[in-house]
Amino acid sequence: MPFDVQSSLMQKGPISYTLIKKLNKARRGVVHTQHGDIQTPVFMPVGTNGAIKALSVEQVESLDPAIILANSYHLYLRPGIDLLREAGGLHQFADWHRAYLTDSGGFQVFSLSKMRKFDPDGVHFQSHIDGSRHFYTPELCMEIQGAIGSDIAMVLDDCVALPATHDRIEASVKRSIAWAERCSRCERPAHQGLFGIVQGGLELDMRLKHLEALVEMPFQGLSIGGLSVGETPEEMHAMCDAFVYQMPEDFPRYLMGVGTPWDIVEGVAAGIDMFDCVMPTRNARMGTVFVGNGRRLNIRNASNREDMRPLDENCQCLACRRFSRAYIRHLYVAKEITAVILLTLHNLTFYLDLMRKIRASIEDGTFEELRAKFQPGSSEEQEA
Amino acid sequence: MPFDVQSSLMQKGPISYTLIKKLNKARRGVVHTQHGDIQTPVFMPVGTNGAIKALSVEQVESLDPAIILANSYHLYLRPGIDLLREAGGLHQFADWHRAYLTDSGGFQVFSLSKMRKFDPDGVHFQSHIDGSRHFYTPELCMEIQGAIGSDIAMVLDDCVALPATHDRIEASVKRSIAWAERCSRCERPAHQGLFGIVQGGLELDMRLKHLEALVEMPFQGLSIGGLSVGETPEEMHAMCDAFVYQMPEDFPRYLMGVGTPWDIVEGVAAGIDMFDCVMPTRNARMGTVFVGNGRRLNIRNASNREDMRPLDENCQCLACRRFSRAYIRHLYVAKEITAVILLTLHNLTFYLDLMRKIRASIEDGTFEELRAKFQPGSSEEQEA
Repeated sequence: MPFDVQSSLMQKGPISYTLIKKLNKARRGVVHTQHGDIQTPVFMPVGTNGAIKALSVEQVESLDPAIILANSYHLYLRPGIDLLREAGGLHQFADWHRAYLTDSGGFQVFSLSKMRKFDPDGVHFQSHIDGSRHFYTPELCMEIQGAIGSDIAMVLDDCVALPATHDRIEASVKRSIAWAERCSRCERPAHQGLFGIVQGGLELDMRLKHLEALVEMPFQGLSIGGLSVGETPEEMHAMCDAFVYQMPEDFPRYLMGVGTPWDIVEGVAAGIDMFDCVMPTRNARMGTVFVGNGRRLNIRNASNREDMRPLDENCQCLACRRFSRAYIRHLYVAKEITAVILLTLHNLTFYLDLMRKIRASIEDGTFEELRAKFQPGSSEEQEA
Repeated sequence: MPFDVQSSLMQKGPISYTLIKKLNKARRGVVHTQHGDIQTPVFMPVGTNGAIKALSVEQVESLDPAIILANSYHLYLRPGIDLLREAGGLHQFADWHRAYLTDSGGFQVFSLSKMRKFDPDGVHFQSHIDGSRHFYTPELCMEIQGAIGSDIAMVLDDCVALPATHDRIEASVKRSIAWAERCSRCERPAHQGLFGIVQGGLELDMRLKHLEALVEMPFQGLSIGGLSVGETPEEMHAMCDAFVYQMPEDFPRYLMGVGTPWDIVEGVAAGIDMFDCVMPTRNARMGTVFVGNGRRLNIRNASNREDMRPLDENCQCLACRRFSRAYIRHLYVAKEITAVILLTLHNLTFYLDLMRKIRASIEDGTFEELRAKFQPGSSEEQEA
C-alpha cells in the first residue's frame, strides 16, 4: 500500500502534482511548475549542455515538449556557475521558457569523470574534459542547480552499477539518505522544487527502507534511481511493478534515465509519471530510428537505399512528411549533419507521440491494449 | 564594349535574363527559371549533397534563397544517377521546389579525386570516397545534371589553379572550348538551361578569346571560372573589372566559387549577377561568422565567453534574435551540433541580407557607398 502522505514530511511547494485518473497502477496526472503544467506520464528530452543535441530551439519548440532535462555536471564544468548566474539562469541563457529538470550530476561524476574518491562529505573527481580536480558535495550540487534555475532539482545520490553486492547497495542507500537530507536543507530559488532519489538496486527491502527515510524529508517528488544500470529489462520492470505503487500517491514519480518504448509502457503500468532518456537523440546520431510500435530501423541498411517510403508512414514529423528513407540514408551516408537533424526530429516525435497515446489510453481505459503492442515480439511490434 | 548579342548564337530558353537597371557596370536584374524568378545580384547557398550543410529544409526555406547549388560530382558518386532518376530528380528527392544550379563536377574531379588523367575525351579519376575508377566526360557531366534535373547546368571545363604557365592556360581554354561544345550538343530536360564557362586565368586576352568562342554556342548564360584559385583578391577583382563588362549584356553572368563579402561587392561592381561559395557554411562549422560590414568574428575566442550581446546587433537571424555570443560559444566549445546550426543560419542570413542591400543600393543609386563600407580596413569594416 502507498505511504500515507499525511504522515510524511513531503509537501507540495513550487512543484505540485494533481492525479487525474488511475487505471490499475497507471496514473494520468499533471505536474504544476512555474514554467507551465506538465501532462503526465511525460517524456523529458535530454538537453545535456543546455540544448537538445542536433536541434535549434525553434525545432525543439515545434516538438512541443512540456519539460526538458539539463545536466548539472556538464553545465558546472562548462560554462560554469558564474556565467549561468550572470546570464540569469538557463531559461534566459538558452531562451527556453518552459520547465527544466536538472539531474544532480552524481551519475555523471560516477560514470564520466576520472579518479573518483568518496569521502563522507562528497566525492573527489577529475573533469573528463580537462582533468581539473573538483570536489562534488550535496551543497555544491544544489548550488549548481540553483545557478541553472531549473524548475525541478534532484538530490545528490550514490548510484550503483548492477550487479552489486548487498553491502555496496546498503552503503549507497546510507550515503544517499545522508546526502538527500543535506540537499533538502540547502537554499533554493523560489520557483525550484526538489525530488528525492530512491536507490537500492534490485533489493525491494532496501528500496522500501530508502523510501521510508526520504518521505520524512520535505521533497515535492521522488525518483527511482539506480535502474537501467546493468540489469535486464525484465528485472527492472519487475522492480518497478513491486515498488512504485508503494510511493506516495500525491507526488510525481520519476524513473531516471529510462528507456526504450517497452520500458516506458512498463514503467507507466507500474505507476511512473516521468521519464528521461538519451536514447531518441543518441540513437538518431547513430542512424537508428524508432518506428511503428517501437521497432528500430537503421537508416544505414542497404535495404533503405532505394526505399522511397518515409521512415514511418504514420508519423507526422518533418522527416516523415517530406523525405524518403532513401534521401535520409543518402545524407547520413554522406555524413551530412542534416541527416542527424532529421533523425533526431523523428525520434523525439516518436517518444512524445508515444506519451500522448499513453495519456489518452489511460483516459479512455485502453492502456493495456496499447501496452500489449509494445511487448517485444508482439505481432504489432513485428509488423511495424 | 560588350558583344553584340545579335551576332552571337547565345539564346534565351528555359532560362532567361531581364536587365532592370545598370549603375555604371553594376546590374540589377532577374533570372527567370521554371522554378521561380531569381532577383540578381544573387548569392546561391551551396548544398553539395542535396542539403545545405547543418540545416534542415524548413530552415533553408526560412532563409528564403531563390536558388541553391548542388554538386554534380558528389551526387554522381553518391547516391548516383539511377537513384536520382528513380526519385524524380533532386527537386523531388530533397523536397526543394525553387531553382537549383549544378556545377559540372569538373572542379571537384580536379580538386578532390585521386589519380586524374586527361585524355581527349575526358578525364579518368578515382573517387575520393572509395577509390572506384570513373571516366568523366562532357556527355557524362550532362547526363548527371539531367538526372539531377537542375534548372541551370554548367558545361564541363578544365579549371587551372593559379599561378599557371601560359601554355597550361592555353591548353585549358582549348580543351574547355571543345568540351563546352560537346556539352551544348547533349540533350537536356526541357526546363534546364546551360551556361558556358570562361577560363583563361589572369590573362585577359585568353579570357576574351575563350568568350569569343563561347558566344557562338547556344548558351543561356556565362560563368567566369578559374578565379579564386590561388591569385590575390586584388588580382581577381582587377580581372573581373577588365573582363566582365565585355560579356553579352542580355545574359546572366556568374562568378563561380566567390567569395568573401568584399569579393562579392567587387564582383557586383564589375557587372556580375550570380555568386556561390561554401564560405558562409564552411566558416560556420569552423566557428567563424561574418558581422557588420564583413568583419569576421571567431566564436571560440575567449572574449566571447561572457559576452551577452548577439553575434550582430543588426541581424535578424534566429541566432541573433534569441541567443548571446556567450551561449553560442558555450555550445560550440561543448561540440554541440546546435552551435553549428545557429552559426550557419547566421552566416547565410548575412550573405542573403548583403545581396538584398546590394540590390536595393543599385536601385536607389547608393551602391558605391555600400561598396566602400566593405573595403578591408574601411572605418565601417573596423567598427563592426
